Amino acid sequence: MIPMKTISTEKSHGGVQGVYAHRSETCDCDMTLAVYVPPQATERPCPVLWYLSGLTCTHANVMEKGEYRRLAAELGLVVVCPDTSPRGDDVPDEPDNWQFGKGAGFYVDATQEPFAANYRMHSYIVGELPRLIEERFPVDMSRQGIFGHSMGGHGAITIALKNPDRFRSCSAFAPISHPSVSGWSKPAFEKYLGSDPAAWRPYDACSLIKDGHRFPEILVDQGTADSFLVDGLRPQELQTACSGADIPLVMRMHEGYGHSYFFISTFMEDHLRWHWERLK
Amino acid sequence: MIPMKTISTEKSHGGVQGVYAHRSETCDCDMTLAVYVPPQATERPCPVLWYLSGLTCTHANVMEKGEYRRLAAELGLVVVCPDTSPRGDDVPDEPDNWQFGKGAGFYVDATQEPFAANYRMHSYIVGELPRLIEERFPVDMSRQGIFGHSMGGHGAITIALKNPDRFRSCSAFAPISHPSVSGWSKPAFEKYLGSDPAAWRPYDACSLIKDGHRFPEILVDQGTADSFLVDGLRPQELQTACSGADIPLVMRMHEGYGHSYFFISTFMEDHLRWHWERLK
Repeated sequence: MIPMKTISTEKSHGGVQGVYAHRSETCDCDMTLAVYVPPQATERPCPVLWYLSGLTCTHANVMEKGEYRRLAAELGLVVVCPDTSPRGDDVPDEPDNWQFGKGAGFYVDATQEPFAANYRMHSYIVGELPRLIEERFPVDMSRQGIFGHSMGGHGAITIALKNPDRFRSCSAFAPISHPSVSGWSKPAFEKYLGSDPAAWRPYDACSLIKDGHRFPEILVDQGTADSFLVDGLRPQELQTACSGADIPLVMRMHEGYGHSYFFISTFMEDHLRWHWERLK
Repeated sequence: MIPMKTISTEKSHGGVQGVYAHRSETCDCDMTLAVYVPPQATERPCPVLWYLSGLTCTHANVMEKGEYRRLAAELGLVVVCPDTSPRGDDVPDEPDNWQFGKGAGFYVDATQEPFAANYRMHSYIVGELPRLIEERFPVDMSRQGIFGHSMGGHGAITIALKNPDRFRSCSAFAPISHPSVSGWSKPAFEKYLGSDPAAWRPYDACSLIKDGHRFPEILVDQGTADSFLVDGLRPQELQTACSGADIPLVMRMHEGYGHSYFFISTFMEDHLRWHWERLK
């Protein structure tokens, strides 16, 4: 069993919102995560929903502001919210750059020094963390969905595209669509993965789709007042890629909504229901 | 009109969550507050619900973690969340004491120096702030309810008891019940109000009830795993006071719940419905 430490547990909406930490072999550092276990889990294993957060976030942002517990408790969904990057004093970082390093792991496995030893969030999310969750929590691993916000919405889409047999459902709030070309992600890709764009393709949703990866259907919610819409997020490029590959994409544009948790929390319950329909 | 500055507005659940600041004459400092305006307010003035926060909080805690917007938007309730004390470099404080000074105004009007000039949260909440809200927002001031958490739950109960003609509804999450005797509030009362306990009575729920103040009915939710239950909160003393005065008190004890927003958010919608039944 992977050793795990309980940081806190709080009863909420009938279930338990916990925060846990463990030594990650994958990222060679201590990692923190939030797990919500609904009341139904005392009687039977529950489907598990992975939420990947955006730039600058830890496990805590969605735990505090995401408003997922009410409906997760009603439906019976375990919600796992990992951190967005390796952490700790020994982890290389660019402290003044919010688009790279700590808080900005982009869910890739870095190949470039000095980042390759710790920045392995892809392997962490698809490998070590699911093992920990399966060992420690009452989850039905045959029923998994994945979603996220911005950098994490993109992480969810790419991980779903690469693992269509593992995940039954995928959705995203304001995802980055094409990080190889966006101003806030291309420099990070260069530093994590090197200057050859061929190495970026496994971590770029539009490239993955062009390269033949598929997922049965994807839900995306996007605010029209999102300040990152034009350069950073580029939802129309995801639409183009999906329609070219016959991937059903439900893209909902919401007038006046921004990029924050005030937007995410508004549509959180729609997403939980989307996943529940495919996981129940 | 009281001058007011918009700090931010974010669309959320169909309405607008705003943060505003204004110069408070009452507290002789700048004050910040959060106001949620539901979508119905574009068509008609809406009832207004005042949420008073607990120790250490600003306007932001409940705005981020309280999970009130979903149902406030559905019902059509304006939710106003003020700060818990005067703020600013010129305001006297005990920075290492979380139970006094900034973040711990206790909704009293201080009479003792050096606090009397700024620590006038009672007059702010019942006087200046309602004037600002009435001037600036689409509210129906004939339909007001008040609630809060801990120090703010007590603030809500005392303000309702003193203003039964203004408020149609009152509720509290884990309120302090008898601050004149609790270890975390008595020293603050001494510093704000002086050493004569007679001066504390207008700011103590149990004393107010003994002194003849009444309110039609009060809802209280309280977690049994709340670490402040025995000394700080003393819900049984509020029960005794209310039953001695024939004030209907609905006191619900919730097994395993703590004092945090994980508890508050669980029962937030129950409280909004309680108020709505009396405000609609």
